[in-house]
Amino acid sequence: MVRGRISRLSVHDVRFPTSLEGHGSDAMVSHTDPDYSAAYVVLETDAEDGLKGCGLTFTLGKGTEVVVCAVNALAPHVLSKDLGDIVGDFRGFYRQLTSDGQLRWIGPEKGAVHLATAAVLNAVWDLWAKQEGKPLWKLLVDMDPRTLLSCIDFRYITDVLTEEEAYEILQKGQVGKKEREEQMRTQGYPAYTTSCAWLGYPDATLTQLCSEALKDGWTRFKVKVGADLQDDIRRCRLIRHMIGPEKTLMMDANQRWDVPEAVEWMAKLAEFKPLWIEEPTSPDDILGHAAISKCHNRVIFKQLLQAKALQFLQIDSCRLGSVNENLSVLLMAKKFGIPVCPHAGGVGLCELVQHLIIFDFISVSASLKDRMCEYVDHLHEHFKYPVVIRKACYMPPQDAGYSTEMKEESVRQHQYPDGEVWKELLAAQGN
Amino acid sequence: MVRGRISRLSVHDVRFPTSLEGHGSDAMVSHTDPDYSAAYVVLETDAEDGLKGCGLTFTLGKGTEVVVCAVNALAPHVLSKDLGDIVGDFRGFYRQLTSDGQLRWIGPEKGAVHLATAAVLNAVWDLWAKQEGKPLWKLLVDMDPRTLLSCIDFRYITDVLTEEEAYEILQKGQVGKKEREEQMRTQGYPAYTTSCAWLGYPDATLTQLCSEALKDGWTRFKVKVGADLQDDIRRCRLIRHMIGPEKTLMMDANQRWDVPEAVEWMAKLAEFKPLWIEEPTSPDDILGHAAISKCHNRVIFKQLLQAKALQFLQIDSCRLGSVNENLSVLLMAKKFGIPVCPHAGGVGLCELVQHLIIFDFISVSASLKDRMCEYVDHLHEHFKYPVVIRKACYMPPQDAGYSTEMKEESVRQHQYPDGEVWKELLAAQGN
Repeated sequence: MVRGRISRLSVHDVRFPTSLEGHGSDAMVSHTDPDYSAAYVVLETDAEDGLKGCGLTFTLGKGTEVVVCAVNALAPHVLSKDLGDIVGDFRGFYRQLTSDGQLRWIGPEKGAVHLATAAVLNAVWDLWAKQEGKPLWKLLVDMDPRTLLSCIDFRYITDVLTEEEAYEILQKGQVGKKEREEQMRTQGYPAYTTSCAWLGYPDATLTQLCSEALKDGWTRFKVKVGADLQDDIRRCRLIRHMIGPEKTLMMDANQRWDVPEAVEWMAKLAEFKPLWIEEPTSPDDILGHAAISKCHNRVIFKQLLQAKALQFLQIDSCRLGSVNENLSVLLMAKKFGIPVCPHAGGVGLCELVQHLIIFDFISVSASLKDRMCEYVDHLHEHFKYPVVIRKACYMPPQDAGYSTEMKEESVRQHQYPDGEVWKELLAAQGN
Repeated sequence: MVRGRISRLSVHDVRFPTSLEGHGSDAMVSHTDPDYSAAYVVLETDAEDGLKGCGLTFTLGKGTEVVVCAVNALAPHVLSKDLGDIVGDFRGFYRQLTSDGQLRWIGPEKGAVHLATAAVLNAVWDLWAKQEGKPLWKLLVDMDPRTLLSCIDFRYITDVLTEEEAYEILQKGQVGKKEREEQMRTQGYPAYTTSCAWLGYPDATLTQLCSEALKDGWTRFKVKVGADLQDDIRRCRLIRHMIGPEKTLMMDANQRWDVPEAVEWMAKLAEFKPLWIEEPTSPDDILGHAAISKCHNRVIFKQLLQAKALQFLQIDSCRLGSVNENLSVLLMAKKFGIPVCPHAGGVGLCELVQHLIIFDFISVSASLKDRMCEYVDHLHEHFKYPVVIRKACYMPPQDAGYSTEMKEESVRQHQYPDGEVWKELLAAQGN
């Protein structure tokens, strides 16, 4: 089915000047606020279909060039390879990228080199799905369990999940699959919004965005906390008052606290009844008992599950090693009975992760209980196949691929530092 | 005391073609074996003394360019800064480097960006020690406890070690300090050798190197294991037979196993009475209970100590965030009563880490029980102030600085890809 040899890998440093929004142009000079960015990979083959595989990993501005550099270091593993050979032994290919005898040292499976791995593999998955003429979630749903498992590197996780156990989970997931696929197509996957309550927003903005979101049918809201306790109390009270006692409120501390500080702070915010506290402390702190945490690889997730240190699990399509590593985490979460609530936002994270969570519902978890996928209304206009939200739910993508493809014009204009947008901004900054 | 403003930061991609040794030139083509390398940073100031700060982080060949790129991303935090301001608020400066709002995303405090942080900060410490006219270990030993603590970022570790507890540890360490410094100067710090038993060596080489090491007075040996069980049994039997039952044998599996595999394998090697098993599994696997482990930051070490998951703790001068982060780990190890046995070898790791462990003995642990520092006889000739080993002990460095400075000629010849050594090799490879 798959065809062609990888003939070209190009990688772009694409940055959106989001630090300018709402913070004045001086924010850019000091570069304290993020410029939402991506290392964006395009794979071409020598096949006649002319299909390209697009992949990305999300970054925050500075440092994107480091990830681009890491993608180039991985390129020799991809170039001239037959796509059939890659996906025919996807576990082997994954292992090759993550275990390169020399590159491994600067990870392994973490930091810039793992983000680069995600960008490259996301492009491979996009290409595969496009060649099969299916959206990625459907490619995964239709894949027979053995083939699907052959994409996963079980190294370092066999003490909690063997390949045979994973096979049994997927076999059980076959029951009722058609019905769940139909349910997704008609109702979509429940989402929650983070767009209303960023730290920088004044109360008036917060009130306005929240009231608009309520009108649009949103019932689950996330608020950023952790910079100033009195400020947090005021903002949480405001939001809880607006949404009422029945709707769902989550909090995200973005790693701001030490463990004792987190305990103290959260006691003060408990009255606003948050469903979870996201990243109260260092993402490396397994024993720090995060309620929900973004992690950099399956080994960290494994331990969070073993240590019963989280009540919700948050996958990320661009921080873990692409679909391959996310599959292993979805299967471990199923084994431990922990609901997965994906992280999204940034650049393209919503576009990508919807595929994974829709697959999870249809083929793995078979449940929507306590489950929802983050949504942020940001930068979707730069994607060729942007997410479709209906009644606060993600509607399953229909187009072939992984929804990773950006508009050529957007990429060209936002390339750093030579795209038009940046040329102008940097010139203005120079004046 | 300190003086000058940082006027220049240069960074070099320095690679030694170690993959060629003992493996034939085809190893280079496939690049499966490591080329011991470093991202090498040189800081210059506008002070009249003309002193330069040199720092490095160790890498394995490919990927060094990624770390170089990350160093350049950090450079704006260093350039034009007054050295007095940097070391006067070293905790703040450390935090600035590791918590840059944008760069943080591609770490945080791990992978390429953390290695780059180490290289930059190692150069700052070298410069500081040179300006004070002391070897780094002596700078640390003479520093008053409060100043020393002001170099440490306690974020994410206050649940196990507060600044006050650290202060008490250092205060207690004052007792008997003079005597211990004298002991170091006369007898040195005990070392163990890894030079005899690399995986690739044939038995004859192993026998010869081991017999030479015994003649040179070595009493502690480390053997690499994990590729093939029968092979390991044969090699361990050979070495244990040569060194006799009383001398110390350690094993290093270099992350090759899953947890169940490690348990099975080690049962088979137990008869050779290893003191420890190093890195049996993923370095991220805290709950996988490594006996000894190289870790990427203080948060991982904290948990290994909390979980009682290690019996020995292995610091690394170039993987952690320089002296600053290593100080926090030495203090936590003291609190938990776990002996520190530093990792060394590579490029310059012996040169650097000897300073840390000698300081640890004099001012923190005050004990040599179950303690020793790794030694590998490799690439010291490229350093201006190479380690001095006497009777299998590290003798305290006498020259000012952190022993990080490489010979200019070595740097020039081994720069990748433009140095003479690489020009020739790459040309030969092209033919």
